[in-house]
Amino acid sequence: MTKNAMTAVPGFQATGVKCGIKTSGASDLALVMADRPCTAAAMFTQNAFQAAPVLYDKALMAKTGGQGIRAVLINAGNANACTGDQGQRDAEQMARWLEEMAQLPADTAFVMSTGIIGQHLPMEKIKTGLAEALATMASEPNGGALAAEAIMTTDTVPKEVFVRLEIGGRVISLGGIAKGSGMIHPDMATMLSAIVTDASLTPSDLDGALRRAVNGSFNRVTVDGDTSTNDTIVILASGAATEAPLSGTDLEVFTAALTDLCIKLAKMIARDGEGATKLVEVQINGAASEAEAVAAAQTVAISPLVKTAIFGNDPNWGRFLMAIGRSGAAVNVAQTALWLQTPQGRVRLVAQGQPLPFDAVALNQQLQAADEVTIIVDLGFGSASATYWTCDMSYKYVEINAEYHT
Amino acid sequence: MTKNAMTAVPGFQATGVKCGIKTSGASDLALVMADRPCTAAAMFTQNAFQAAPVLYDKALMAKTGGQGIRAVLINAGNANACTGDQGQRDAEQMARWLEEMAQLPADTAFVMSTGIIGQHLPMEKIKTGLAEALATMASEPNGGALAAEAIMTTDTVPKEVFVRLEIGGRVISLGGIAKGSGMIHPDMATMLSAIVTDASLTPSDLDGALRRAVNGSFNRVTVDGDTSTNDTIVILASGAATEAPLSGTDLEVFTAALTDLCIKLAKMIARDGEGATKLVEVQINGAASEAEAVAAAQTVAISPLVKTAIFGNDPNWGRFLMAIGRSGAAVNVAQTALWLQTPQGRVRLVAQGQPLPFDAVALNQQLQAADEVTIIVDLGFGSASATYWTCDMSYKYVEINAEYHT
Repeated sequence: MTKNAMTAVPGFQATGVKCGIKTSGASDLALVMADRPCTAAAMFTQNAFQAAPVLYDKALMAKTGGQGIRAVLINAGNANACTGDQGQRDAEQMARWLEEMAQLPADTAFVMSTGIIGQHLPMEKIKTGLAEALATMASEPNGGALAAEAIMTTDTVPKEVFVRLEIGGRVISLGGIAKGSGMIHPDMATMLSAIVTDASLTPSDLDGALRRAVNGSFNRVTVDGDTSTNDTIVILASGAATEAPLSGTDLEVFTAALTDLCIKLAKMIARDGEGATKLVEVQINGAASEAEAVAAAQTVAISPLVKTAIFGNDPNWGRFLMAIGRSGAAVNVAQTALWLQTPQGRVRLVAQGQPLPFDAVALNQQLQAADEVTIIVDLGFGSASATYWTCDMSYKYVEINAEYHT
Repeated sequence: MTKNAMTAVPGFQATGVKCGIKTSGASDLALVMADRPCTAAAMFTQNAFQAAPVLYDKALMAKTGGQGIRAVLINAGNANACTGDQGQRDAEQMARWLEEMAQLPADTAFVMSTGIIGQHLPMEKIKTGLAEALATMASEPNGGALAAEAIMTTDTVPKEVFVRLEIGGRVISLGGIAKGSGMIHPDMATMLSAIVTDASLTPSDLDGALRRAVNGSFNRVTVDGDTSTNDTIVILASGAATEAPLSGTDLEVFTAALTDLCIKLAKMIARDGEGATKLVEVQINGAASEAEAVAAAQTVAISPLVKTAIFGNDPNWGRFLMAIGRSGAAVNVAQTALWLQTPQGRVRLVAQGQPLPFDAVALNQQLQAADEVTIIVDLGFGSASATYWTCDMSYKYVEINAEYHT
């Protein structure tokens, strides 16, 4: 498991502190800083109710064109969403305090929030925590890990990924953290992620790379179909490792590495889905188009009946086909095929649209032993494919979500 | 509670018997018969994987134009879905046996199946059960209730509704049964329903009345967003109570009565949703259009985070707005308002897009005491409204669906 991914990228510092927002007393304020102005790209929730920090960050991107960014401040435990004008002032205040205390120019800091909706932020606690973070960050040996922990909400494990690769003779590093466990669904819900790199990219190339990476990763993961008010991903590129902005094949290589990093984080989110006991991958082949393959994969991945069947180690493939059948994807029923795969092997359950005999006891045991299950379906219609990640649905999911607020 | 709804309609007989499809030994074969040829209308699942009985009934409707129908045979415990050519022959055989044993003309019987997907029907058991049903139906005093029971799968209570009204000086009766508990979602999933009436309607008017009724009832209920391979609703109109087909205002009155009957059945399905402890009604007001109001209501009703919050008696209204925010419905955030209502009263939680203070302990107790909860949201945008029904999501939902097959 990666540790200290963000701070493994040369030129970046990070940390996480306990400022008292979470009633549990766990750390709840993360700070990421670059030693020089960075190019930034960001993507945000599509939800109509957008949290105050989302609106602040969007305005910041519009104002700066994604240039000159130095820092990201993230609090967990309170989403600062549905908080009206006061919430808007609070989001801006977080950015101002960071810029002032760290002696950064104005308009150089992103802010993100995640947690309960509809309550005002405890601003004095954030101010105190921010001062502590700034005072201790430079001497903190595990700053990257502390940042990953401080953004967790119902996550059970911190999520960080580090990648180092050579592009055009230069060593480039990427480090990312993410949080997300429930309310997970495209577009990027309920997820926060911050990624840093020492590569140099133009603002528009960085934006394009981020969009491609997110489309193939965070936008292919669902826990419960719900999206949040706060979803945000931001990437800061310092440019320290490369002289000129990446272009051509180098840019392609960078985008592939960024996509791979995002897929790793997205799979961590699915595996850590609220109450999850298994990571579930849905592979759709034989679709008429990629869009239809994605729709079919998503519909399987979101189905509570599929997810409870996997929790029950039950190869109830009728539910998988049922879900595909309502996805809108074109299906050639007479050519449909379906497999279940675990680390122990692959079992074909449907061929040419007809059920195949299988050893139910053996397959049940195989599913019981697996912490990863792949559902593979061929729609028999075309040649397009897509992959989606989710988790099973357990009693624990209900417990977590019935008892989160009260 | 209504009992024997179907057989309370003059001219109709019904019964239910145990033929041994359900491993529990519960009754699993329902028969409904009319004493004269009926006009029929039917609606079916939109799922791409359509069960054999659905394909059979569609062909029957096309062949007969919905005229001359005499009977409906329904088995529970096995869906006869994803069963290939053998399944198709089995569905047809069910209809043929009924027509032969009851000495009906060919092409006068509907068949429906519900239960596990991907297994072939035990045809000899069905034949034996059908013979028993035909032999005992006429002398069975509780035939309507037995039919309602025999179509249950994970339902915990039978669902039947009877309505009697006067139209144009004639007394008209309608009786309906339905089953459905999990995999419930538009269009009409996973639901079977049969309705009988002694009114007279032309095939096209009966079809129009059924579509209007279903649109405002069964298509406004969700348990888990999943739709099935088998969903079917059929209505038989004998015409015994009225001389000429209903038209004009009389047809409107009939359609309203049919809609009311279907809403009652739909709410019974939502209340009996798998593992449900509460019926949840979602009322959306202030939408730009009815379609957007329906989309917003459906997105709230389907959200696992909303449903688990209600199970936890938790007025976590941020989740309700979050769901609306991803529904695609236009929202005027600054004019949004939200209420929670139980039989004890209504509490306003959001006004003009801002959270209002409320007594969390008192509201938690109020929710605990309620078996019906209404979520009312004003989108502040327009004047269109829609209502949707669902249930809460409990541990029991996971248990039922993780352990249904194995």
